[in-house]
Amino acid sequence: MSYQLWYWDGIPGRGEFVRLALEAGGIAYRDCAREPGTEASGLVADMTAPRPHPPFAPPYLVAGDLTIAQTANILLFLGERHGLAPADLAGRLWVNQIQLTIADMVAEAHDVHHPIASELYYEEQKTEALRRAEHFRGQRMPKFLGYFERVLADRGWITDSGRWTYADLSLYHVVDGLLYAFPKRMSTLARAFPQVMSLHERVSKLPELQAYLSSGRRLPWGDGIFRHYQELDGN
Amino acid sequence: MSYQLWYWDGIPGRGEFVRLALEAGGIAYRDCAREPGTEASGLVADMTAPRPHPPFAPPYLVAGDLTIAQTANILLFLGERHGLAPADLAGRLWVNQIQLTIADMVAEAHDVHHPIASELYYEEQKTEALRRAEHFRGQRMPKFLGYFERVLADRGWITDSGRWTYADLSLYHVVDGLLYAFPKRMSTLARAFPQVMSLHERVSKLPELQAYLSSGRRLPWGDGIFRHYQELDGN
Repeated sequence: MSYQLWYWDGIPGRGEFVRLALEAGGIAYRDCAREPGTEASGLVADMTAPRPHPPFAPPYLVAGDLTIAQTANILLFLGERHGLAPADLAGRLWVNQIQLTIADMVAEAHDVHHPIASELYYEEQKTEALRRAEHFRGQRMPKFLGYFERVLADRGWITDSGRWTYADLSLYHVVDGLLYAFPKRMSTLARAFPQVMSLHERVSKLPELQAYLSSGRRLPWGDGIFRHYQELDGN
Repeated sequence: MSYQLWYWDGIPGRGEFVRLALEAGGIAYRDCAREPGTEASGLVADMTAPRPHPPFAPPYLVAGDLTIAQTANILLFLGERHGLAPADLAGRLWVNQIQLTIADMVAEAHDVHHPIASELYYEEQKTEALRRAEHFRGQRMPKFLGYFERVLADRGWITDSGRWTYADLSLYHVVDGLLYAFPKRMSTLARAFPQVMSLHERVSKLPELQAYLSSGRRLPWGDGIFRHYQELDGN
């Protein structure tokens, strides 16, 4: 049985956290909204179809009779079923905890360019974005990255298993997004957070990910959660 | 063994989602940061102490050797261990999915009065808050509440088990916060979302919660996540 992943086409977005786990885990899936002829209207039609456990928003994963939404929840499921996280209680909760902390940072990174409302254009909230970006760069980026640095400490990965979990893949993706959106700020911060930068590099070279990363299927950064506006970046 | 809950004193905050589950589940716990002589400095000292799985922020729960952070993660643990959620995979994931959707709404409700930065006062970002509040009231409140209405449908609870889960308690708490923060807006929306309002009333009358709700230990709404500023409310 192949999983069906549903997420907006055109941006990596939150769907990419799921894709990375599926790809690195060698798990078969269909990327339904990116199949020819489906498009956004097909996603909306599927998402709003009657089902016992409806999603609030993409991404969601259809696994046989199950429909599972919320990024961290999908990853919790995949982690348990495919060994992408420790099997013991402490390890499972720990990886979920890190994933949820990553999700918090992702939401804040989005709100840097959309501090007023998702349904407005960036240009309609640019004044507010400039103010929010200053605080995100100055306060929040060091706070989150400092926490992840402490977590990685001398073990290099999020758990002490000596290998990656789905949360390591997600942390790679967040750092990648920050490097795209805030290149100036990251060039300053990288020096203070060597473990985080090392994890980013190590995941990018994982043998399990090479086929995907070189396939052209990984969507480029653009107008999604992580956006690059020169005026929002700074040392 | 009694659990140790750590969360800032003085506001219900995210700690209250955990308290409601502990109280309704009849589970023994210490509310450490509210014990005499502990205060915020005691919380910070405990939170930053070396441990294998450090929290990024409160709330966190110490359960023997485990330290568990992130509200939804703590609830996932309590739900599994104390039967506050279904034991089967589909039910467990579903309740976690709803909890994460509630968490998204909670973060947005906070950012209504703090759209620029948590570390600034409301008065320093009031202009931006007025703009964000308009969109939250107009777009986001109906979207989230409409989703929960659909979820509750005719079964009254989040699962079809005929009883509450920790996510039902959390939904009660969010609605309670919205009624406090946006009384005008909620008086309009309540008519459109009878199932949500009925759940709010039903949970407030749960026999399992009466001792807690009448104890004086439930902290009043104030300057936390849900805040009432007249200028941010409207029909």
